[in-house]
Amino acid sequence: MERFRHGGDIYRESFSQGEWLDFSANINPLGLSDKTRRCIMEHIDDLVHYPDTEARELKEAIASHYGLSREEIVLGNGAAELFYLFFGMMRFSKVLLPQPAFSDYERAALAAGSHVEYVFMKPEDGFQLPLEKLCALGDSVDCIVVGNPNNPTGTLTAAEVLEKILDRVDGNTWLLVDESFMEFREDAEKYTLRHLVERYPRLFVVQSLTKFYALPGLRLGFGVARPDIVKRMEEGKDVWNVNLLAQKAGVAALSDTDYQRNTLWWLWEEQAYIVEALHCIPGLKIFPPSVNFVLADVRGTGMEAAYILLEMKKRGILLRDCSNYPFLNENYIRMAIRSHAENLRLMEAWREIMGNRGR
Amino acid sequence: MERFRHGGDIYRESFSQGEWLDFSANINPLGLSDKTRRCIMEHIDDLVHYPDTEARELKEAIASHYGLSREEIVLGNGAAELFYLFFGMMRFSKVLLPQPAFSDYERAALAAGSHVEYVFMKPEDGFQLPLEKLCALGDSVDCIVVGNPNNPTGTLTAAEVLEKILDRVDGNTWLLVDESFMEFREDAEKYTLRHLVERYPRLFVVQSLTKFYALPGLRLGFGVARPDIVKRMEEGKDVWNVNLLAQKAGVAALSDTDYQRNTLWWLWEEQAYIVEALHCIPGLKIFPPSVNFVLADVRGTGMEAAYILLEMKKRGILLRDCSNYPFLNENYIRMAIRSHAENLRLMEAWREIMGNRGR
Repeated sequence: MERFRHGGDIYRESFSQGEWLDFSANINPLGLSDKTRRCIMEHIDDLVHYPDTEARELKEAIASHYGLSREEIVLGNGAAELFYLFFGMMRFSKVLLPQPAFSDYERAALAAGSHVEYVFMKPEDGFQLPLEKLCALGDSVDCIVVGNPNNPTGTLTAAEVLEKILDRVDGNTWLLVDESFMEFREDAEKYTLRHLVERYPRLFVVQSLTKFYALPGLRLGFGVARPDIVKRMEEGKDVWNVNLLAQKAGVAALSDTDYQRNTLWWLWEEQAYIVEALHCIPGLKIFPPSVNFVLADVRGTGMEAAYILLEMKKRGILLRDCSNYPFLNENYIRMAIRSHAENLRLMEAWREIMGNRGR
Repeated sequence: MERFRHGGDIYRESFSQGEWLDFSANINPLGLSDKTRRCIMEHIDDLVHYPDTEARELKEAIASHYGLSREEIVLGNGAAELFYLFFGMMRFSKVLLPQPAFSDYERAALAAGSHVEYVFMKPEDGFQLPLEKLCALGDSVDCIVVGNPNNPTGTLTAAEVLEKILDRVDGNTWLLVDESFMEFREDAEKYTLRHLVERYPRLFVVQSLTKFYALPGLRLGFGVARPDIVKRMEEGKDVWNVNLLAQKAGVAALSDTDYQRNTLWWLWEEQAYIVEALHCIPGLKIFPPSVNFVLADVRGTGMEAAYILLEMKKRGILLRDCSNYPFLNENYIRMAIRSHAENLRLMEAWREIMGNRGR
């Protein structure tokens, strides 16, 4: 299962001691908001009840926050569950995956018995989506999956480009757009395809609520599709899949405009800081981040990524080894952008490791 | 969706005010144990981390508590998720369901495209499992699903009877045994088939941890099958399906032997009380409970179940309307066994409603 290993695995035996600085998972470092934490605390004694099977409050909150209708929303026990649900329901013959990308697109498609084909986003093109190739291949597959922004490359694709794909292949081919990191952009509305599901019946948009709101342990995501598709997906899962605390926390988090604003402020500052700081590491090639993580090619530093990862670990810092992504090799690592204090510690570690080279 | 409506739905608009006495869901009235509540509180700030993708601690706790090996255990976001996962993976042509039973067996089988056939457990036989019929039909279907004890009838089936089915159909037909209420029996070890998965490769046993430990809002269940089947099921779902608090709470709950003993004591006393008290309601026919709920036929009381349910609601009490179970009709209701104080209130309401008859 090495092939599908993820970041954020702080539980492996070798990691069991002490507090790690986890740059391997892309979670909002502002942590649980006070409002959300309070809401969770208040509902612990309600765990003796089943979750609301229709998630009335949460669907209302999502619909109102994102300007959607309730009938277009399917809730997931994390965004990841929705990939398995969607592929399990659709049983596509062929799925086309621009790579490198989040490995569960492939794992979920394979679990549903689909054949998976790749197209390559190349580092020399800044990992841009190969539009022409996608459109050309689009008609021969049943579904294309695009992360926007894409993890781990950070590739941000304009809505018009994705619409072009939809216009070219619609009627035959599905487009699944994973917008799980979109929330970290102030201009998300410009990029999201959420509002196009009415126009494109074969569009499914997935959104995580746990990265931006720092709730990955609680699991919460949603998908947007035409009501008939939502209905079919809901029939394919049990009605209690989103736990009671996740339903309550989701409502609290979406209403917390201070937290939302503070997150965008933090990222605006720290993205600029980390880009500038990483640029000062000799030989390190970074791909400009579109959200809260940075992909880097370490080849030019004269060190292997495995060595850097190990040295970072010695300093209590976890980075994401990218060698198990298709089309990335052992030269790539991914780093989350965290709080200023943590980013300082990261940069300190980088400078130390660079200083020790060749000793 | 009326066909698949469940008990415990305290969220419907008409129910939104005040505190309900919920006899419609079969949850341990001892509620969250102190140990489990404390454990949940202590881990709220850990929600910024992903759950352990391998659920090492929880699998260890389950393996040790139930005498299983970790490789035989697949974890579910509630037991219900496991039905969808299992059927979705197996895609059986035909599934045989003794009825009346928990409606999600059927809903999950239908979602996987299976054809569903029924056999009937008859009230005049005390809803016993029709062994001969099951064995006769067993060869012509791909899977038989048995709840043991069965919800809503309370039917308890001896392990030898289920083994007989396995011996007769094994090699061709799967047996899924749902033991979600088994934990409420002191003699559970005598009835469970958990330890037979090595011998019968087509046996899948499901267990809920949320009814006995009063955690339905948090979602937690597990399945037991041969390691190769477990592996296939794990490949069919995302690796974060059991949230972090459910993993922690599960470990705490399984270690709480006081709570386990107190629950068995409570049920021993209250089962006896409620059976005796309900026997005093003229015309009410009850089916002897095997665990923490009682099925009753109200025909002989001269009142319709719908009227009784409504009168109970007026008194703040929810019972389970059983009219949407196949082969049960509008004469059946199901009542959870709750704390002594709550059971007294239930009986008080019964007597009032009986006293008002014909007014």
